[in-house]
Amino acid sequence: MNPPLRERHAKSGKVPRLSGEELSAGLSELPGWTLVEGTRLTRGIKFKDFVALMQFVNRMADLAEAENHHPDFSVHYNQLDLTLWTHDAGGLTENDLVLAARIDALLSAG
Amino acid sequence: MNPPLRERHAKSGKVPRLSGEELSAGLSELPGWTLVEGTRLTRGIKFKDFVALMQFVNRMADLAEAENHHPDFSVHYNQLDLTLWTHDAGGLTENDLVLAARIDALLSAG
Repeated sequence: MNPPLRERHAKSGKVPRLSGEELSAGLSELPGWTLVEGTRLTRGIKFKDFVALMQFVNRMADLAEAENHHPDFSVHYNQLDLTLWTHDAGGLTENDLVLAARIDALLSAG
Repeated sequence: MNPPLRERHAKSGKVPRLSGEELSAGLSELPGWTLVEGTRLTRGIKFKDFVALMQFVNRMADLAEAENHHPDFSVHYNQLDLTLWTHDAGGLTENDLVLAARIDALLSAG
C-alpha cells in the first residue's frame, strides 16, 4: 500500500497522467480540492488579511521549490486561488495530488 | 505641477475615479501598462525563474502594505500578471497610477 499523499514527494522526469480510477482514489484524500474539466485541481483559500496570505504563499513557494512542482496561483487581497496541473502531461499526475496534499498539510500546520 | 507618480503615495479614504483626461495624462508616465476596458491597468512581467519572481512579489507586497493599496496578481511559474484598480471607486484612481509607477520603479531597481 502506498503511503498517504502528504508523505510522498513529487517525482522528477516525465510522470504519466493519472487514469480516472487513480484520480478518484487520490481525490478521496483531498476534500478541499475541486476537479475542473478532469484536468486541473483548484482550491480557494481566504486569509485574515494580505499579510497572512503572503506568509502562506511564501511557505507554499518553498514547498514548490523543494518538490520542483509549482502551483499556479492568483491573489486578490486576502483571497488565494490555486490551480494544479502538470503541463507536460496535459492534465493531472501523481505530482499534483502530492502537492495538493502537502499544501493542505501546510495549511493545517499554519 | 504635481511630482512624478513614482514619488507620490497612495491616499487613504475615498479617492475619486479619474476622468479620461487625468487617466491619459497618468498613462503617459506608465508605458509598460495596458488600460483594459477603461477600468483596470494590467502589466505582465516575465522573470528568470520562480525564485526570482517570488523575490519581486515580496518586495511588491511590502510596497502594497506600505501604500495600503494592493494589486491583484497571478503567478504561472516565472510569469507574473498584475491588475490594478480601486474596488471602491469601480475603476481607476490616482492610487492605481501611483502604485503602477512605484511597481515600475521597483522593477528598475531590481
